[in-house]
This record gives sequence, C-alpha cells and structure tokens, in this order.
Amino acid sequence: MNATYTIGLDYGTNSVRALIVNTANGREVGTAVWEYEHGTQGVILSRDPNLARQHPADYLKGAEVTIRKALAEAKRNVRGFKPEQVVGIGVDTTGSTPLPVDAEGRPLAFHKKFARNLAAMAWLWKDHTSVAEAAEITALAREIRPHYLAKCGGTYSSEWFFSKILHCLRTAPEVFEAAYTWVELADYVPAALTGTEHPDRLTVGICAAGHKAMYNDAWGGYPDEEFLGRLDPALAELRKRLRPKAYTINRSVGTLTPEWAKRTGLRAGIPVAVGAFDAHLGAVGSGITPGTLVKIIGTSTCDMMIAPLDQPLADIPGLCGIVPESILPGYYGLEAGQSAVGDIFNWFVNYIQPGGPKNGSHEALTRAAAKLKPGESGLLALDWNNGNRTILVDQRLTGLLLGQTLYTTPAEIYRALIEATAFGALTIINRFEEYGVKVEQIINCGGIAEKNPLVMQIYADVTGRPMKISRSAQTCALGAAIAGAVVAGVHKDYASAQKAMTGLKPRVFQPNPAAHEVYRQLYPLYRTLHDAFGTREWTGNLYDIMKTLLEIRNRARGVTG
Amino acid sequence: MNATYTIGLDYGTNSVRALIVNTANGREVGTAVWEYEHGTQGVILSRDPNLARQHPADYLKGAEVTIRKALAEAKRNVRGFKPEQVVGIGVDTTGSTPLPVDAEGRPLAFHKKFARNLAAMAWLWKDHTSVAEAAEITALAREIRPHYLAKCGGTYSSEWFFSKILHCLRTAPEVFEAAYTWVELADYVPAALTGTEHPDRLTVGICAAGHKAMYNDAWGGYPDEEFLGRLDPALAELRKRLRPKAYTINRSVGTLTPEWAKRTGLRAGIPVAVGAFDAHLGAVGSGITPGTLVKIIGTSTCDMMIAPLDQPLADIPGLCGIVPESILPGYYGLEAGQSAVGDIFNWFVNYIQPGGPKNGSHEALTRAAAKLKPGESGLLALDWNNGNRTILVDQRLTGLLLGQTLYTTPAEIYRALIEATAFGALTIINRFEEYGVKVEQIINCGGIAEKNPLVMQIYADVTGRPMKISRSAQTCALGAAIAGAVVAGVHKDYASAQKAMTGLKPRVFQPNPAAHEVYRQLYPLYRTLHDAFGTREWTGNLYDIMKTLLEIRNRARGVTG
Repeated sequence: MNATYTIGLDYGTNSVRALIVNTANGREVGTAVWEYEHGTQGVILSRDPNLARQHPADYLKGAEVTIRKALAEAKRNVRGFKPEQVVGIGVDTTGSTPLPVDAEGRPLAFHKKFARNLAAMAWLWKDHTSVAEAAEITALAREIRPHYLAKCGGTYSSEWFFSKILHCLRTAPEVFEAAYTWVELADYVPAALTGTEHPDRLTVGICAAGHKAMYNDAWGGYPDEEFLGRLDPALAELRKRLRPKAYTINRSVGTLTPEWAKRTGLRAGIPVAVGAFDAHLGAVGSGITPGTLVKIIGTSTCDMMIAPLDQPLADIPGLCGIVPESILPGYYGLEAGQSAVGDIFNWFVNYIQPGGPKNGSHEALTRAAAKLKPGESGLLALDWNNGNRTILVDQRLTGLLLGQTLYTTPAEIYRALIEATAFGALTIINRFEEYGVKVEQIINCGGIAEKNPLVMQIYADVTGRPMKISRSAQTCALGAAIAGAVVAGVHKDYASAQKAMTGLKPRVFQPNPAAHEVYRQLYPLYRTLHDAFGTREWTGNLYDIMKTLLEIRNRARGVTG
Repeated sequence: MNATYTIGLDYGTNSVRALIVNTANGREVGTAVWEYEHGTQGVILSRDPNLARQHPADYLKGAEVTIRKALAEAKRNVRGFKPEQVVGIGVDTTGSTPLPVDAEGRPLAFHKKFARNLAAMAWLWKDHTSVAEAAEITALAREIRPHYLAKCGGTYSSEWFFSKILHCLRTAPEVFEAAYTWVELADYVPAALTGTEHPDRLTVGICAAGHKAMYNDAWGGYPDEEFLGRLDPALAELRKRLRPKAYTINRSVGTLTPEWAKRTGLRAGIPVAVGAFDAHLGAVGSGITPGTLVKIIGTSTCDMMIAPLDQPLADIPGLCGIVPESILPGYYGLEAGQSAVGDIFNWFVNYIQPGGPKNGSHEALTRAAAKLKPGESGLLALDWNNGNRTILVDQRLTGLLLGQTLYTTPAEIYRALIEATAFGALTIINRFEEYGVKVEQIINCGGIAEKNPLVMQIYADVTGRPMKISRSAQTCALGAAIAGAVVAGVHKDYASAQKAMTGLKPRVFQPNPAAHEVYRQLYPLYRTLHDAFGTREWTGNLYDIMKTLLEIRNRARGVTG
C-alpha cells in the first residue's frame, strides 16, 4: 500500500509555510517557507505604531509558492513520491486577522480603488489601532451582556474582530461601506482554495469566531443584533451577513478547485479542513491532552489547554478565551498567552542593536547570558513591550526595565528580558491552577523552544517544572496536516491521528533547584511591579524593590554592600 | 608690565588637566590632559561593582606631565611666554577620595607591601563599597548627633570619608592598621607639591572636610571622639591624628618645592592654594554669586549655590552639604548633585553599544534624539544608574526605563535618559527654592554643557528656565587657577579675581514654551516614580503611568488610540 500524505499550510506573521507529512508516522517529507512580499517583513506599518496590516495577495501567492516548493522537496526526499499521494489539506493562520471582502467574497484590497488603502488590507492580529473601540465593546458588554466577557477574560481586546471592524467603520467609513462582510484569515484561505469564498457559501471555523468574535452556540452564535446595534446600527446590519453557524476542525469546507490544483500541482478534489488559528492547531500538533499545557513560543506566545466538555469549568479571569471545541472536538479550548515573547528579544536585537557587530546577535547574547547566574545582574523587567494578554488583558501597557547600573551589559538585559517572559509564563500557569485546571505537563513548541535551550532552561528554573519540547519543529503546520488527515478520513478521529503523527523530543529541561530558589525570590518582585503598574486595585510602596534586587545580586555575586 | 599667569590643576575621574590662565583676563594660554595609567580609564575595578579605586602614583605623574605640556603649549601660543610668569597654583580634585598614608604622609600604595592591595589605593568618590558603614554612621548620628546630619542632607553617604575608612577598618584591617592617617586627594596634591605631606604639617581644606567628613568649626572640627569611638574605638584614635583646623581657599598651603620646580619647569617658591573639590572651584570659575546656580555637568553633576554667612539659612533636606566657606570665603557653600549624568549616557553608548557601528555614537544618537518631539517616544526613565545623591541621598537605587514598545529606538532611549537627568535637575532646583534659596540664574559648565546643545535645550525646556553656559571650557581648572591668583596676591579677593577671569558664552538656551508644556505633564510622572521607588513614605498605585505616557505619546505624534 502506498503511503498517504497531507499538507499543513501555516500562515505566520512574516511568512507562510507548507509542510507535507506522512499520515502514518508524522514524518515531515517536504517543507517550504515564503516571506510575504508587502510591507516590512510582511507587515505593513505606518507612523502610528499601533498599526499592523497585511496584503491578502501575499496569502494566495504564498500558498502557491510554498506548496509547489514543498512538493518538489518531497520528491527529492522520498523515492517515488507523487503529488497524488497528498490526500488532504489543513490551514492555520494568525488571528484575529480579519479582512474586508466584497459581495463575492473577494478581498477589497484586490480592487484597484482600495489597492493602497490600509483599512482595506488584512488587519493583522497585532494591530492595536482599535483600543478605544475595544474599551467601548467591553464597557457595553459589561453593562448588558456580561456573559460575553466571562468567556474571554473579562475584556474584549483591541486585537479582535469587532474592535477592528468598528474602528474601520469610525475611521475609514469608505472601506466599511464598500465591504459586504469581513472574513477571518483562518476562514479566507480554506475558502479560497476550495472556491467557497462567496459569503453565502463560506464556512466559518469555531476557533476564530469563538475566541475573537464572541461567537457561542449557547447564545445563538455571534453577539446579538441589539448588542451590536448599540455599538453602531451598521454593525447590526453586518451581523445579518455573517454566517449563522461555526464549525469544528473535523469538517472540511470543500475540495481543492481545479484552478488551485493547477497552481499548486496537487490533485483537484482533495478535502480542505475548516481553518483554525496557528496556536490551536499547534496544540494539536504538539499532542495536547487534558492536563497538558502547550506553549507555542514565537513572536508572541499562546498557552493552550483543553478540558472535557462534560465536566464543569469555571470562567477564568484573564484568559483570552474559553471556547467549546475550539481546539479539539469534545473539549473546551482554553487559550491564554503573552502578547510578545520572541518579539521582545527581536526588538532588543534588531531595534536596539546592542553590543556592537560581534556581540549583538541572538546567538552571541544567548551565549553571554547563559554564563550569568540568576539574580546576578540585579535587573528585573516586565514583558509588556506589546501589552499584556494574560492575565491583565491590557494592550495599553508598555515595557519596563529596572535595576540598571553604570555597568549593566546587553547580555544582562537580554537575560532579564528572557526572565521577564518566564515570569509572565508562570503567572499564566498559576492562573490556570487557581481556577482548577491542573497543569500536569508542559510541552513547548515554536521557534524559540526549538532553538534556544537557554530560554527553556530559564523557563524550567523559573516555573520549577520540567519543560518538554514537541518533536516537530513545525507543530502548527503539523497540526494543520493532522486536520487534513482527519477530514481526508485517513484517521478516524483526532486522538488516533495525534497518536500516530505527534511526539516529543528526547531532551527534557529539568529545573535546577538552586536557580529555582533565586527565582522564587525574584518572582514576587516581578509580581509586585505587575500588579502596581497593571491593576487599579494594587496599592503600596516600591521602596524595597531596588534594594531587594541589589541584595539578591550581591548574594549571587558573593559580595557584600 | 609683564602678564602674570597661574596654573589650575584639575583631577578628574579619568584624567588630570593643567590649565595656564592669564590672571588679567582669564585667557587660557596652555592646557594639557593626561589619562591615568592604572585600571580601566584610570579607575581600578573589581568583580564587586561597587568598588572604584585609583593609584596615587597617577596623581603625581599627572601633575608633572600636564604642567610640562601645558607650559610647552603656552610657549607656542604666547610670544615670549616664560614659565617664570606663572606665579601661583590651585588644585581641585574629585572627592571624597581619601587615601591611607604612613606617618610621613606617604601613600601606603607606594609601599611595596601594599602595592597591589586595593584597600591601600585612593578610594575614588564613586566607590560604593561602604554602604553598610554609611548606614551605621547615619543611624548613630541620628541617635546622638542629629546636628551632624542636618548639614549633609540627613544621610551620611557611602561615598564619604568616614564610611570608607570604617569599611577599610572592617574589611582590610591590615591596611587600616598600617595607615597613620587618611588624607583627601584635594589635600594630598597641594601637600605633595609643597612638601607639606607630613601629617603634622598638612593643611586641610574646609571644602573636603566640611562636606564629606562632618567637619564644622561650630562643633569643634571633626566629629567628636565619643561619636567616632561608638563606631569603633580605632576611629576615635584616628581622630587624634587628623588636623585640628580646616582652611578656606584664600590661604596657601606652602610653596612649590625645588624638586617639583625641577619636575615641572616652574619656578620654585610660588604659592599653592588650599585644595578644594572640582565642583567648588568649578563654581568659582563659573562666576558664582548669591542667586546663581552653577551646574557642573560631567560624569556626575554638582549643583552649587552660595548664600551669605550673615543671613539665616534653613537646613535643606537632601543636600549633600551646607558648609560655611566651602566655596567662597564669607558665604555658605551649598552642594547638591546627581550621582550620574554623563556616566548614564556613556553607559548607554559604551556598555550597551546600541544602534550598530554607524548610529551608536554620542553624536549620532544626539542628532537622532534632537529630531524627536518631547513625549513622542512614550518613554520615561529614572536617572538612578549610580544611585541618587540629591534629594534622596541613596546609593542603593538603580536605573529604570519604562514605556518600551516593540519599536522603541536607541535614539528614543538616549533622549529619555537625557530627559531623566533633566527631571532630576529640576527636582534639585525645586528643593533649593522650597527652602528659600531662590535660583535667579543657572550657569552650566562641564563637558556636556559645552558640547551638547540638545542636553542644554532639554534642560531649558524641562525646567522652563534659560540655560547659560560658562565661557571657559575648563571651569574647574579655571577656578583652581583663580585660587592660585588670589593666594599669589594678584587679585585682592575672589570677587575681583572672578570679575577679571570669568565670563559667559553669548549663546543662552531659552525654554521653548510648547516643549515646556509637554514636560510639565511628564514631570509629575517622573516624580511619582521617584517617590514610589525612592521613599518609604509614598503609597499609591501606578496604573495610570503607562497609560498617561501613551496618551502624551499619541498627542505628540498626532495619532489616536
């Protein structure tokens, strides 16, 4: 019997990847990455530092280029490999990344009239222009629909679907008027591949709708017309053009069109699964089970858990979302996260460019930071350069670095930034457990988990828990390929597909007890800063913070004074 | 009549300078700088980041080398110049920079036995190893001699004379035992030049003794034996070997020895004035009068004022010192200051090395920072990388930077660091005026005031006051030369010497009202951080800080959100 393969298409912030996976064992036989052509590293920026957009043309060209290249690589890697052996496709994307489309489902950005209009582009997940609208939505929901908020951490984010649409309505009405409806990137790509973009035929995934658009079957889908109408009557009208029902990833949205078969070299008619966010399919590709926290560590971090649908679950304040079946059918999907992790390290290396040409790379800074002992820099940072997603759900927060002397080095700051993200990670773990979701194991995936053992060791030392690493270097694309395998019927369900196609790396990062002890002293200081700058409730004095850091530093260095 | 000249010898943190000045008009006809040979840029460091020492050999070699070179330059600059026209010498130094000496007044570091012992070196002003001893001295004084503290800001500093000696006694008893007594650098150099180093002949200046060693004629000189004995009986014994009386700078300590005349090329027998600190003679060289704040802006900053001895003056909390006649005879000398200013900018450029090879110099960062509008970076910093001298008198404070996003640039940070030092400067001005010492004009001097118009403009914009610049680029050395002119009898007193020898530059930096308005919004945020991290008394919440900074940033950029 011939092997069968599926393709996972993974749309990231800067690039798209195609991954061809053997459905029997998860072997990855071909992959290709294509950097988006528009903007700066694929992101269209402006003078407003909150703005981040993408051109939808990059999504389509990216699918074509990467599938063709990945197929070519598979042919080189596997003797006798034929594109016809690819039997299904799954898609994961960033989100909430909504884009305005016309009455045919075609992105407005493809119209000549809107070709250069930033509001007609895809509004990338990290676009924070809609802070005011998010606050307005949150305030209204708090007043008349508190249950909407209970499932998304108590605050509706500026990163999300309706905040962005409302901001477009307010600031670029010509785009809002021209848009027939708005589509999440996670739904747009499967629709485009299968020719189901038309708003009447579009299949919407529960993942994007549930986590970012307050969709819930329990209250009849999207937020009701009265609620949306109170924000703006035009939003209530828009709701009529949104799809009535959202679906889980064990369904296909349609089959690959002959045109896309021609563009990619694949067989026409193979099924394409309902799309989902990268983090959710990354959790699937990491082998998520109840009790497992999957941390997908990239530019930002997503912290994913699942909990059985048939057992009671508290509303957990600060979580980005608690959505039935958003990760796997039969389970609540729980999403937490940090708004920036790798992005903070990248900021330091790319924007600050510290240490001169020889010492300023990620590799050089990591090497130097690895030589430092916990606490010896005297530094403490907050990981808020892009706001705080969990547990504060507040984009209007910024970075903080404390403890600098006249001798502070770039490597010390780099390490402090890593530690700050680890303290943020611990805050999320604690939040899960405070509300009864026990974290029994942690599986990490994503570029940083793969490539930076120092980060993983610091995470183990800060949290006091072993850090496991997902076997695949491309867990999001792998999860998408698993979805392709399930909708193609190769595996009967996700449990058996995950069992066959996922695994862990042999190396587990164990916490070092001495390092953990120092971090147990530092974490309360982090938490004090976190609460002092991040909550209205905290009141107190910070006089001891710098002094305690100096004491910890001096103990770490073995000096007095 | 032939012109007469005097020499000012200015001992800085990294180098020593000699300046030859025409006593009739202040014209500077020859100058030379010599970088100390020992340590890193003249400072001996260790793994303990608090430690900063200097080798006294550098002080003597520095005098010889710079005087010879400056004389050679004067010969090139002035037709017919003869070294015999130099009629007096003044000396200014860093401080408190005490060094242990033997019974002949010879530095212990010159003994072979102690040649490599860090405790036998000069304890540079910014050595902070003696924090615990400073706290102990402060606590004891608060208990039994509160009037000692009232004149030095309420806290005895780890940078000062007795803290350092007590720390030596505790941690390097072999050095303490071997030392007959301890001498301030400001007293050591004039003594060495005149052969009066012997502890029985040594002349002690009121400036160092009054500001750093709690010397006051009102209570009989140095702290009494009972007080010192409570700290350690050996300190009470040491007091017996300290000089009973300290003198103002209108007195000479002796005349140049034949040996030093030979070493330098000067005429033997010319008078050398009582030494004083660089800031105090810098104030003299800037033309200080009552109502004038002289800011000497270098690696750190000294903020100097004078007030008539015959009028009442409150104790001003947080001032480093209020000492009769420490700057000019007939006036209280008031000293405030910031523990690091240029050092913070130097740290950023030399340690962090931001911006890659092209964009990371002081010049490039200044150019880029000058293009930014007040508030537009969203950043706010505390200027505490080396602690806070005035008004908190606390070395155990560290730097803080707040407001970073993923797009923050080195130039934005550089500007935020400049602004932080300006906010620190404003806090000092406010403190003077809160206690009745009116600041009628501000004269700046020192390297940064000279060379960085952006810093001066930001200081004007932050404080809302014009910034004037002292005419001389070497005001400390000029002040020392003025002291040489007074003790040589060329001028009858300091007022006439200052009138003849000092002046201002034509360019005055006027505050920009629009910029000042933005800084009026930012300063309360700085002050909140200052009080929250720097005082035990503050209590509150910091939730609004990051958000207000974002609002100010958005207004400055003209964006919403």
